[in-house]
Amino acid sequence: MSTEKSKKRKRVYFFGAGQAEGHAKMRDLLGGKGADLAELNRIGIRVPAGFTITTEVCTEYQKLGKKFPPGLKEEAKDHLKRIEKLMGARFGDSENPLLLSVRSGARVSMPGMMDTVLNIGLNDRTIAGLVAKMGDPRAAYDCYRRFVQMYGDVVLSVDGEKLEELLERKKKRRRVRLDKDLPADALKELVAEFKNVVRETTGRPFPEDPHEQLWGAVGAVFESWDGKRAVEYRRLHRIPNDWGTATNVQAMVFGNLGETSATGVAFTRDPATGEKRFYGEYLTNAQGEDVVAGIRTPHPINIAGKGESGLISLEEEMPEVYAELVDNYKKIEKHYREMADIEFTVQQGKLWMLQTRSGKRTSVAAIKIAVDMVAEGLISKEEAVKRVDPDQLDQLLHPMFDPKADRKVVAKGLNASPGAATGRVVFSADEAVAETKKDPKAKVILVRTETSPEDIHGMAVAQGILTSRGGMTSHAAVVARGIGKCCVAGCGDIHVDRKKGLFHAKGATVRRGDWISLDGSTGQVMLGQVPVVDSEVNQVLLGQKKREESSLYMFFEKLMSWADGIRRLGVRTNAETPLDSFRAVRFGAEGIGLARTEHMFFEGDRIDAVREMILARDRDGRKKALAKLLPLQRKDFVEIFRVMEGKPVTVRTLDPPLHEFLPATPKEIRDLATKMGVKPKKLQEIVDSLHELNPMLGHRGCRLGIVFEEITEMQARAIMEAACIVKKEGRKVLPEVMIPLVATKKELELQREIVERVAREVMKEQGVKFPYLVGTMIELPRAALTADEVAGAADFFSFGTNDLTQTAFGLSRDDAGRFLPYYVEHGILPADPFAMIDQAGVGLLMRIAVEKGRSTKPDLKIGICGEHGGEPSSVRFCHRVGLDYVSCSPFRVPIARLAAAHAVLEEKGGPTPPAWVRGGKKAAGKAAQKTPKKKTAKKSARR
Amino acid sequence: MSTEKSKKRKRVYFFGAGQAEGHAKMRDLLGGKGADLAELNRIGIRVPAGFTITTEVCTEYQKLGKKFPPGLKEEAKDHLKRIEKLMGARFGDSENPLLLSVRSGARVSMPGMMDTVLNIGLNDRTIAGLVAKMGDPRAAYDCYRRFVQMYGDVVLSVDGEKLEELLERKKKRRRVRLDKDLPADALKELVAEFKNVVRETTGRPFPEDPHEQLWGAVGAVFESWDGKRAVEYRRLHRIPNDWGTATNVQAMVFGNLGETSATGVAFTRDPATGEKRFYGEYLTNAQGEDVVAGIRTPHPINIAGKGESGLISLEEEMPEVYAELVDNYKKIEKHYREMADIEFTVQQGKLWMLQTRSGKRTSVAAIKIAVDMVAEGLISKEEAVKRVDPDQLDQLLHPMFDPKADRKVVAKGLNASPGAATGRVVFSADEAVAETKKDPKAKVILVRTETSPEDIHGMAVAQGILTSRGGMTSHAAVVARGIGKCCVAGCGDIHVDRKKGLFHAKGATVRRGDWISLDGSTGQVMLGQVPVVDSEVNQVLLGQKKREESSLYMFFEKLMSWADGIRRLGVRTNAETPLDSFRAVRFGAEGIGLARTEHMFFEGDRIDAVREMILARDRDGRKKALAKLLPLQRKDFVEIFRVMEGKPVTVRTLDPPLHEFLPATPKEIRDLATKMGVKPKKLQEIVDSLHELNPMLGHRGCRLGIVFEEITEMQARAIMEAACIVKKEGRKVLPEVMIPLVATKKELELQREIVERVAREVMKEQGVKFPYLVGTMIELPRAALTADEVAGAADFFSFGTNDLTQTAFGLSRDDAGRFLPYYVEHGILPADPFAMIDQAGVGLLMRIAVEKGRSTKPDLKIGICGEHGGEPSSVRFCHRVGLDYVSCSPFRVPIARLAAAHAVLEEKGGPTPPAWVRGGKKAAGKAAQKTPKKKTAKKSARR
Repeated sequence: MSTEKSKKRKRVYFFGAGQAEGHAKMRDLLGGKGADLAELNRIGIRVPAGFTITTEVCTEYQKLGKKFPPGLKEEAKDHLKRIEKLMGARFGDSENPLLLSVRSGARVSMPGMMDTVLNIGLNDRTIAGLVAKMGDPRAAYDCYRRFVQMYGDVVLSVDGEKLEELLERKKKRRRVRLDKDLPADALKELVAEFKNVVRETTGRPFPEDPHEQLWGAVGAVFESWDGKRAVEYRRLHRIPNDWGTATNVQAMVFGNLGETSATGVAFTRDPATGEKRFYGEYLTNAQGEDVVAGIRTPHPINIAGKGESGLISLEEEMPEVYAELVDNYKKIEKHYREMADIEFTVQQGKLWMLQTRSGKRTSVAAIKIAVDMVAEGLISKEEAVKRVDPDQLDQLLHPMFDPKADRKVVAKGLNASPGAATGRVVFSADEAVAETKKDPKAKVILVRTETSPEDIHGMAVAQGILTSRGGMTSHAAVVARGIGKCCVAGCGDIHVDRKKGLFHAKGATVRRGDWISLDGSTGQVMLGQVPVVDSEVNQVLLGQKKREESSLYMFFEKLMSWADGIRRLGVRTNAETPLDSFRAVRFGAEGIGLARTEHMFFEGDRIDAVREMILARDRDGRKKALAKLLPLQRKDFVEIFRVMEGKPVTVRTLDPPLHEFLPATPKEIRDLATKMGVKPKKLQEIVDSLHELNPMLGHRGCRLGIVFEEITEMQARAIMEAACIVKKEGRKVLPEVMIPLVATKKELELQREIVERVAREVMKEQGVKFPYLVGTMIELPRAALTADEVAGAADFFSFGTNDLTQTAFGLSRDDAGRFLPYYVEHGILPADPFAMIDQAGVGLLMRIAVEKGRSTKPDLKIGICGEHGGEPSSVRFCHRVGLDYVSCSPFRVPIARLAAAHAVLEEKGGPTPPAWVRGGKKAAGKAAQKTPKKKTAKKSARR
Repeated sequence: MSTEKSKKRKRVYFFGAGQAEGHAKMRDLLGGKGADLAELNRIGIRVPAGFTITTEVCTEYQKLGKKFPPGLKEEAKDHLKRIEKLMGARFGDSENPLLLSVRSGARVSMPGMMDTVLNIGLNDRTIAGLVAKMGDPRAAYDCYRRFVQMYGDVVLSVDGEKLEELLERKKKRRRVRLDKDLPADALKELVAEFKNVVRETTGRPFPEDPHEQLWGAVGAVFESWDGKRAVEYRRLHRIPNDWGTATNVQAMVFGNLGETSATGVAFTRDPATGEKRFYGEYLTNAQGEDVVAGIRTPHPINIAGKGESGLISLEEEMPEVYAELVDNYKKIEKHYREMADIEFTVQQGKLWMLQTRSGKRTSVAAIKIAVDMVAEGLISKEEAVKRVDPDQLDQLLHPMFDPKADRKVVAKGLNASPGAATGRVVFSADEAVAETKKDPKAKVILVRTETSPEDIHGMAVAQGILTSRGGMTSHAAVVARGIGKCCVAGCGDIHVDRKKGLFHAKGATVRRGDWISLDGSTGQVMLGQVPVVDSEVNQVLLGQKKREESSLYMFFEKLMSWADGIRRLGVRTNAETPLDSFRAVRFGAEGIGLARTEHMFFEGDRIDAVREMILARDRDGRKKALAKLLPLQRKDFVEIFRVMEGKPVTVRTLDPPLHEFLPATPKEIRDLATKMGVKPKKLQEIVDSLHELNPMLGHRGCRLGIVFEEITEMQARAIMEAACIVKKEGRKVLPEVMIPLVATKKELELQREIVERVAREVMKEQGVKFPYLVGTMIELPRAALTADEVAGAADFFSFGTNDLTQTAFGLSRDDAGRFLPYYVEHGILPADPFAMIDQAGVGLLMRIAVEKGRSTKPDLKIGICGEHGGEPSSVRFCHRVGLDYVSCSPFRVPIARLAAAHAVLEEKGGPTPPAWVRGGKKAAGKAAQKTPKKKTAKKSARR
């Protein structure tokens, strides 16, 4: 049936000389590349002529058992003639041979997953024509050698290693080091040797007929759609197998045919700053790969770009070509309404555009370009918001290394918390504090196997934190992100020997006091002091610079205000200090979604009272200890309530496994015993008896407040008394008490009773009234599954997706280091589920909880306060699921705001911009004339 | 509207003298008690006359603001007259007063939750009549005293403590110890004093009008439906609030009106053995409570029961009454088709039946009666199966203490694994082994804080295990149940001091070598050797006794064969030794649902190879160690396959956190280092590096087999090679390889690939073919939630409800001891979720997994192999959810078979037998004439 039908359908679409049978919206049929090439022609851009064989043919080809449907070749023949005419050369002609490339092109980019063959049409006859055309036998034979090698490998399935070996042997015999040093006769010999291997392996001679070459290559491209890697890629990216790939057959052009030929790349605006200026580089008598290879120094494309280089520009050398190029780039930017990266070749004075894509850019540039284009009327505000990747804001908010500086990288860990830190190595929190006490300007990097809450004072004064263990949500990573510190975590490359005061990295030994630098955005660990550049936006946000003085900030502010106008999701912050709260508000937080009271327990001497409370054997002992904590906690809350000025503040009652607070060393136990007035041995016994095999699943969360009601009582009192104080000052307050680790409705009811009783008591004592809420974390599968019941006792839900991920997967984030990286690396998990919400599993629990919770309480307020609340894909998911707000660390608040706006725009849908506009990250494909990535990639390093 | 409607409806139903307006099927309207009383009349049994006010009136009463609907009292009046006529006495008459009781009676039994008032109608005038009637002023005034006290407390809300205090003071003044020693005048004084308190407290005199008394009591009963305890009870048992309770008003009869009066209790068959004989006790001139109080020795009811007691029987003393009683019991048994417990009173020569209920019985009796009644044509086989509680089989299968022996109980823990064990105390597994090596007949009890897999050799030789920590699913409990050992776990009453070689219990110190006894069915720990009786059924099952020699066994066998004929759920066993497998098959297991390969790793020297494997730093090292394990595992499987003779055998690949296998002490590390040829320090470092904070959520389950493929490879090879060997012997084999701790489909796919590859290789090598399956545990929420995906790679699912409970609740069973008992005790959880499936949470995950799994594979085989597979309510749940089989420890196989049959019968529904037939456990209410439980319960202890 499909054959019947497809007989009537057009299978081949021509493009060239400003004409095209296809256009941008025919991606499904022509693939992304085919549609783009057609579109360029339609807007009057000259590209090497060619034709696209549709994706439907790919499907037919597979169905017919790897055979071309009848009539296809005839249909292509006419188009081939048009190419020959337009390019002024003939396919298979020995005097003026036309050479062709064959490339895949699916609906969506699948970079490097499928095959490409270049220089089709070369054989022992046509090579003469190429030599004549190029005037350089070496260059021509190099094309020939590469063609035979690539064709043998890709189309004829000859062992690539074998051909590579012949090449190596040849270089040894000719005593040269680089491929390019091989003379023409050696290359000629190689072509013959390669062909011999083909004959021996396949039992048939290498095809000399250009048409046989062409259709062999087209078949190979179609077959690569079902290659193992491509299938796996589609599975991971959920791309249907029946989409198929289109195949593009296109004339080759050469930038190395003498001094009137050239090749170059350019950006329509400055990719570093976003400034509106045409910016690029080129080389005469060169091929595309020469520009990036770095052997010859490229020249600036225009006079404005010359600077003090003293190099001649294209504008001066080929003014007419340059004028056409300028005309082209303007057309492209206007048409695509986007800053573009363009590749071109000049073949004997004639300009050919090879490819144009969305240009990669820094975050600074991304924001400026987006805002500028709105002002220029090119795009809408929605489109501008859509154009900036939320993750890019990270760069804007954290200090960064000078991109020009040298880096001596000795190890690489997880980019746990962005930023750039430089300092002297210390191995303990106490050292860090001591160093900075000695010299307040001292810069230290805290290096630990892993960190614990007791390291917080050291982390606070350090420039950055480096750990050898732990993942993206390890203690070090979470705390670092929370306080905006640079952190490289889980860096298995280093081996810390704390006793000796040193760590080993790849081939280097770093001692206490040595300088190192951490790049929290890449995970790199570098020797010495790499110069750091401050984030401008941050300076303004934190009041160190006036907003009017920073145009970047003004752009940022404008973009964020647009985003705020679009988003529906609220954005709160996870903070428990007045400073963090203040920062978060400056970053746009609309409340606190999570204040972890236990973080307040480590400050100063508080930990002693906490330990006394935990280790007390009875209620009276606990109450005595809690009485010491009450005024301290109350003071914390007073300060936070003041800063938040009536915005909601969600305070979570005591949550972590108690072991986190316990003294560990004999000395700590001795000291505490003295303070508590008990014998050290007795205390040691108590500590031992509290040991848990799996503290994460132990006596923690509301289980503490239920068995020890007095803890919740004290915390509720601290919150309510603080609210009274602030309320009496004439400020608004809106405390929300959040009960952690609830598994059953009854637990929440019991804790709620305590909070409500204490609230009544305190309001009566103080003669003050204010509204407050009592809600719960949803962080256990059972709570999510029974959310209809739990909602009966809750004013709000807040997803604790860290714990929810831990329990749904049965996976402790503290212990995942031994296999989680392996899982992500081997594609067993598409991403670290602690960094990005696992939508199929954890996400389903969230959907269930939202649906069931609102079935009981239709207007139940629901948020998220897990680490995922600041990760863009997770934020978008939260929007889709119907959450009211996300809460994240202060530095991620702008990211969440932008991602929340993206979620709305995604929902709206509307016309999809050309793939390359969206595919900034994915579009990693090479320019038309360059050696394709696959298999031969390693070889290009040698040139 | 309801008032309108109910006006037309009959509100009061009479019963008495063999007539009744209601009947057994009117439970909704008359409550259980009212319907039963009506039914007794209908079958010609004489009960004291009375009437029932319907449940609808209760609802009306509440709606009208605690007022009786108009017309009610008039309706009752006529009935009251009928009572007077039948009982030959008049309500409020001073010469021959009729006294009444008022009792609640809801649709289902809510024992002790609602109020009762007895002896209504007494006042200063009618007391004279009662004195005359009784001929005993003390007895009459005691009735009066109790009435005023109970009425004051229940109806008038006078502080019960206050009245109690007056009673105490009176006894002190009269210098008597017991209530019954107070003379008539003192009781008379008390009545007056009680009435004074009533006047002072309520401001009104005690009601002397019998009708006022009556309606006050009826109102109190209706109001007790909304009492706090009753509401809470209904919430827990999911009883709708709008059901309401009926109220029964009934004439009082007295067994203490001289020598022609009597009271007694009887069973229609022997409750200990099930033998078909009428069995009971009575006392003349006594009240019901005197029979059970033990002050007077009760007489046998008939000559057959006299034995050598020399006491006269009712049959001899009152032959006519006895003949009527025999007639009654036969009617009752025939009508209810059940062994009944009956209570009766003889008032001046006239027999009154007070109550009849399902009789409590031993498991032996339960089985015999059920099987007998089928033979007698009284009940169907289905009914017989329904009549035996699966949990009762436990008693049948484990050795038990002689019920007559004295017990010196010094501690009580969890009844973790049933059985009766006596032995000398040892504190380590090695000691246990050493003792039994010295003397193979030595009996030891292993006492530990908790056990670990390394204790298994000691547990195997011990009579029983006692631990001070851990719950119903702690290691000790699980292993003990698995190997059928008696175990008392989590016994917080004892404090083990291993170093000193002793433990402290309540007031006792037990040293190494002392005898203790453990009752695994009650959790009791006793000093000394309590004599043990062997289980007869077990002896037959294990071949120590011939089946024909045990009538009990023959009954058991018959009942089980009926159960097997009814059930649809398959029953497998969890076993990993040939002996356990053999036992399980004898107990009726249809396959192995879980063989834990790691349990095989502890035997003999194997642990060294396991440790070597874990601690190896590379693949080669691991392979070397695994090569040592291969022949050992293969041998295990060969033996199991032989025993199972073609029944499916599900083998789980390595699962537990590795820390369980690691050497812990420095000596163990030194020894292993020597064997492995590495330095102890180096080995210690490796051990340290493998430390996990939450091993339960760590590198375990399939995560081991994925990162270390060679482990799964070895295990797959051992299984497949073993299968080949057994197949070559001419036996059938059906291995099912089960992959643990799968969270994603991909994990299962990867492990499946390995198993399939190895299977292909082995079958080719051996030239043998056999079917096998590859499936997965569903023990993580994520696996359940994405079961549609996972099913794509699975031949079967098996729920690992232990881990599923741990992760759904975020609750480690090893650490739950600190709060789970508190939770269960305080009703935060209705039961230990590790013992009984949490149907709302964990159960929902199971439902989701079944539904989603079968949406992908409609005929997906699904079972359960968690501990819950042998717990009756969980087995019934598994049936309802649509599982194919349950798997449990060998000793629980018969229990699961019976529970599975119950599940089918439950599903079928059909006519419901009278409540008391079903309510064997719940029917804890007292006999009609006895003091009701509530409030006064503690007082009865004094008599």
